[in-house]
Amino acid sequence: MTRVTRRYRFAASHRLHSAERSEAENSELYGKCNNPYGHGHDYILEVGVRGQIDGSTGRVVNPLALDEFVRAAVLNVFDHKDMNRDVDSFRDVVPTTENLSLDVERRLREGWCFAAAELDRIKLQETKRNSFELKGL
Amino acid sequence: MTRVTRRYRFAASHRLHSAERSEAENSELYGKCNNPYGHGHDYILEVGVRGQIDGSTGRVVNPLALDEFVRAAVLNVFDHKDMNRDVDSFRDVVPTTENLSLDVERRLREGWCFAAAELDRIKLQETKRNSFELKGL
Amino acid sequence: MTRVTRRYRFAASHRLHSAERSEAENSELYGKCNNPYGHGHDYILEVGVRGQIDGSTGRVVNPLALDEFVRAAVLNVFDHKDMNRDVDSFRDVVPTTENLSLDVERRLREGWCFAAAELDRIKLQETKRNSFELKGL
Amino acid sequence: MTRVTRRYRFAASHRLHSAERSEAENSELYGKCNNPYGHGHDYILEVGVRGQIDGSTGRVVNPLALDEFVRAAVLNVFDHKDMNRDVDSFRDVVPTTENLSLDVERRLREGWCFAAAELDRIKLQETKRNSFELKGL
Amino acid sequence: MTRVTRRYRFAASHRLHSAERSEAENSELYGKCNNPYGHGHDYILEVGVRGQIDGSTGRVVNPLALDEFVRAAVLNVFDHKDMNRDVDSFRDVVPTTENLSLDVERRLREGWCFAAAELDRIKLQETKRNSFELKGL
Amino acid sequence: MTRVTRRYRFAASHRLHSAERSEAENSELYGKCNNPYGHGHDYILEVGVRGQIDGSTGRVVNPLALDEFVRAAVLNVFDHKDMNRDVDSFRDVVPTTENLSLDVERRLREGWCFAAAELDRIKLQETKRNSFELKGL
Repeated sequence: MTRVTRRYRFAASHRLHSAERSEAENSELYGKCNNPYGHGHDYILEVGVRGQIDGSTGRVVNPLALDEFVRAAVLNVFDHKDMNRDVDSFRDVVPTTENLSLDVERRLREGWCFAAAELDRIKLQETKRNSFELKGL
Repeated sequence: MTRVTRRYRFAASHRLHSAERSEAENSELYGKCNNPYGHGHDYILEVGVRGQIDGSTGRVVNPLALDEFVRAAVLNVFDHKDMNRDVDSFRDVVPTTENLSLDVERRLREGWCFAAAELDRIKLQETKRNSFELKGL
Repeated sequence: MTRVTRRYRFAASHRLHSAERSEAENSELYGKCNNPYGHGHDYILEVGVRGQIDGSTGRVVNPLALDEFVRAAVLNVFDHKDMNRDVDSFRDVVPTTENLSLDVERRLREGWCFAAAELDRIKLQETKRNSFELKGL
Repeated sequence: MTRVTRRYRFAASHRLHSAERSEAENSELYGKCNNPYGHGHDYILEVGVRGQIDGSTGRVVNPLALDEFVRAAVLNVFDHKDMNRDVDSFRDVVPTTENLSLDVERRLREGWCFAAAELDRIKLQETKRNSFELKGL
Repeated sequence: MTRVTRRYRFAASHRLHSAERSEAENSELYGKCNNPYGHGHDYILEVGVRGQIDGSTGRVVNPLALDEFVRAAVLNVFDHKDMNRDVDSFRDVVPTTENLSLDVERRLREGWCFAAAELDRIKLQETKRNSFELKGL
Repeated sequence: MTRVTRRYRFAASHRLHSAERSEAENSELYGKCNNPYGHGHDYILEVGVRGQIDGSTGRVVNPLALDEFVRAAVLNVFDHKDMNRDVDSFRDVVPTTENLSLDVERRLREGWCFAAAELDRIKLQETKRNSFELKGL
C-alpha cells in the first residue's frame, strides 16, 4: 500500500465571528481573527491518496486527473475568495480552518471518481505555525 | 558597512480594483485578484538596516528596539486587516503589493528613530512566487 | 476526529557525553556532538492535538490557550538555555533529541489541561536533516 | 516507541515511458514526463526508523551508522544517475516515483543491519508538489 | 524605483562534459556531474524587473503578461528537457548553471517586450546549496 | 559578471555578554541571549563569489575547491563549537552575529586562493528571522 500526496495552494480571506455570541465574547474567543473586515491566508492543501501501484502505468493515480479533480472540486471554490461571503458553506458556520477542513474533505469525498485509489488524508496548512489534518476517512 | 535584515509576517486581505476603470477592464487587468469580496495573503516583510557595528555592543541596531518600532509602525496597521477598508492609504489607491511596499517604506522612514543605522531596503513577499523590493532609500 | 498541529521554535545548546564511558568511547559514539563546550540548534517543536470540532466555536482547541500552555510548560524551560546545565532533567541523562522528546512529552502530559482534546503526537526537528516523533501517547 | 526520521537528497534523471504502449498512449499518459531524452529532479528521501531509546546511549539508532548504510544501499545507486539507463531495476519497469519508492524500500529492507530498530516508513519527495510514502513495512 | 521578482520552476537534466578534455580530466573537473547518462535538477528561476509603479494600475509590470513571456521564452525550452540533447545552445557548450544563466538571460533580453520595465536581474538556483546570478544587465 | 553563491551550515553556541557592563545592563541589552550558560543556533552561511565564466570549464570557480576552502577556513573552526570558549576571536569580543560576520569574512579574505574569482559577499543567517550581510568587500 503506497500513499501519494499532492500539494495545492489557494489564497482566501475569512473572518472568525459567531453570530450567537456577543462582541466581547467573539473578541476574546477569536482575538485578531475577529477583526470586522477579515484578513487572509495562503492555504496549502495536501491531498493524500492510498492504493496499489498499477503494474502497467507504475502509478497509484493519474496525477493530472487528480489535479483536475481537486481544481474543480476545491480550488475553484476557494481560491481568491472571501469564505464568509463567497462560499455557501460558511454562511452560518464559522470558517475556522477546522471547519474548512471538513468542508474540503466533504467536497473531495462526494465527487471522488478514482476507482482504484482511496482518499486517505487531507491536511490544510493555514500558516507555517498551524495545520489541520483529517485521516482515515 | 554591514546590513542586518529582520523578517516579519502579517496576514491581510485585499481586493485589486480601480474605480476609474470599467468592470471588464478591471477583470482583465487584475484577473482573480479583482474578485468582489477580496482574498488574502500571509505577507513576509524584510527590513534591511545598514550601519557600522558598535564596538561596545557588537551590534548595528538593537533588534528588540527595531522589532518594537516595526510592530508599531507597520504590523499593527496591517496584521489581520482588510487593506481596502481598514487602512486609510488604500481608500483611493489600489493595494497592489507595489503600492503596499511604498506605503510600508513611508511609514518606516517617517518614524525612523535609529540614529546610528539607516533604513537600507525593504522587501515584501506576497507569495512564494512574487516579491517586491525598494532599495537605496 | 481532527488533528491540529501547532509549531514552535526554541534555540538551545547541548553536549552529548555519557559519564559512564571513556573519552574515546564518547568521541566515537557522538562524534562532533561530543565537543567539550557544546554547540546549539534551533529546535522546531510540533504539538499535535486530537479531538472533535466544537460546534459552537468551530475549534478543536483554543490556539491561544494552547500556545500559552506550551510556552509555560516547555519553551520557557528550554529556549536560550544550555540543556546540560540549565535543565535538571539532563543532569544525568544525555540530552540526545530522543531523550529531549521524552522530556518534552512528559512535561506536556503532566500539565495537560484541555478536557476536550488529547495530546496526540509531538515531533522535534533538531535540524532539517533529522527529526524525532512520539505518537499515540 | 519513538520514530527517528533522517533526510537525504539525491539528484537523478528519468523518462516515463512504457514499452508496451504506443507513442500516443505514452504521451497522453505521462505528458511532459515522456519527453524522449528524460529530465531530472532533486529527490528528498526520508527514512523513518522505529525503536526503543537505548538507556545508555540515549539513541534509537546511531545516526552515523544509519547514514553510512543509506548511502551505500541507496544514494550511491541513484545520485547523479539516469535511472532508466544506470539502474538495473528500471530496465523494464517505468521509473515513476511510486516504483522508485518500492525499489528504495526493497534495498533498505534487504540490507537492514540494525537489530534494535525497525524500518518504519520511507517517504520520497519528487518535487515540492508531490511525495510518495510506504509505511508499516 | 521598485524591483519586482517573480519565481518559476523547471525540471531538466544535464551532463557536464567537455569534448576538448580527456575522460580523466572531465572526471576530475566535474566529479559526479560527469556521469555518462546525465542527472537532473529542479531549477528555480527568479526574474527581477525594475521600473516605476504605474499610477493607474499600481503595478511595475503586468504579472500575467510577464509569466506568459517567461513561459514562452524560457520554460518551454527547458522544462522536462535534457539540456545536452534537447537545447541547441548546449550542443557545443557545457551546460553548467553559469552557462545556463547566460543562455536564459539572452533569451529574456532578446524577446523583452515590456517598454516600461527593465530586466534587472536573473537568479538560477540549481539546488538549495548553490545559485547563480546575473545583475545590472 | 556572474555571481555564484554557495550555501553552508554549521551549528554553534554562544552567549552574548559584555565584560565591560554590569549584569543588569547586559540583561537589558541582550535579553535571553545573555543567559549564563549560552544557547545555540544552526547558522547558514552564504558565500558569494564574483567573476567571469571560464570559457573552457563553463565555471566561475570550481565548486569542490571552494567547498574545501570554506570547510578548512570557516566550518572546521565553528561547527559544533562554543564560540565564546572554542574560538579565540571571541575571547574578548561579544559573539553577536554582526561580529561573527566580520570574523568569517576576515578568515575567507586572508586565505583566499582563487585567482580568477573575487569574494563578493557573505551572508550569515542566524535564524529564519534575522540575517547579516557584508558586501563589496
